[in-house]
Amino acid sequence: MSFRAHLQQVVENVDGAVACALMGVDGIEVDSHHLDAGDGLDVHTLLIEYSSLFRAAREAAAAHEAGAVSELSVLSERLLVVARLVSPEYFMVVALRPDGNFGKARFMMRVTAPKLLAEL
Amino acid sequence: MSFRAHLQQVVENVDGAVACALMGVDGIEVDSHHLDAGDGLDVHTLLIEYSSLFRAAREAAAAHEAGAVSELSVLSERLLVVARLVSPEYFMVVALRPDGNFGKARFMMRVTAPKLLAEL
Repeated sequence: MSFRAHLQQVVENVDGAVACALMGVDGIEVDSHHLDAGDGLDVHTLLIEYSSLFRAAREAAAAHEAGAVSELSVLSERLLVVARLVSPEYFMVVALRPDGNFGKARFMMRVTAPKLLAEL
Repeated sequence: MSFRAHLQQVVENVDGAVACALMGVDGIEVDSHHLDAGDGLDVHTLLIEYSSLFRAAREAAAAHEAGAVSELSVLSERLLVVARLVSPEYFMVVALRPDGNFGKARFMMRVTAPKLLAEL
């Protein structure tokens, strides 16, 4: 299966999901699957900006002996974004509507991350 | 009740919690209650550094029409940190061990945030 197929499978299996992406910790997207998130919401660009949060969290946690960061989530009025580390250099991220299934998103990431890693 | 008493109550009611703080979005702590988090882990300083994540997430979400950021969480090997907005200028944050009760932490924050807001 291609990266895209795995990412699409996540979006299709999580209620409320509008996007799933595989990204480098440097913010460069490897691949993604997006649905239309509705008026004005540019999920694609937002995920790139959010990737800087992952980098910043990683540096802060490492500097203060809190260990490697494995997951990060941001809830805003119109979007819930959950990111999970796939390898030291890549993470996957799911964007869903705030009323979407957060638990299922986390579950699907846990199941999908090893599959993505196997193809990296 | 003082800020400190509310924050202490959160720590005492969440399994695995090691700290609860009320902070300005600018990273300046208003008050906090800390337990000893164990060797080398400087939760106090880490929370100050993490506050920059809240600011960055807020700017990115606003810039891309995702609305106001209300919650942010970071899971690392040794610490799970959950932050929740109390007012536009203040947020509260709970730090717990990764095996701590995340759901209870979110519940206690939801209950405590209005009490802190009433005293701000």
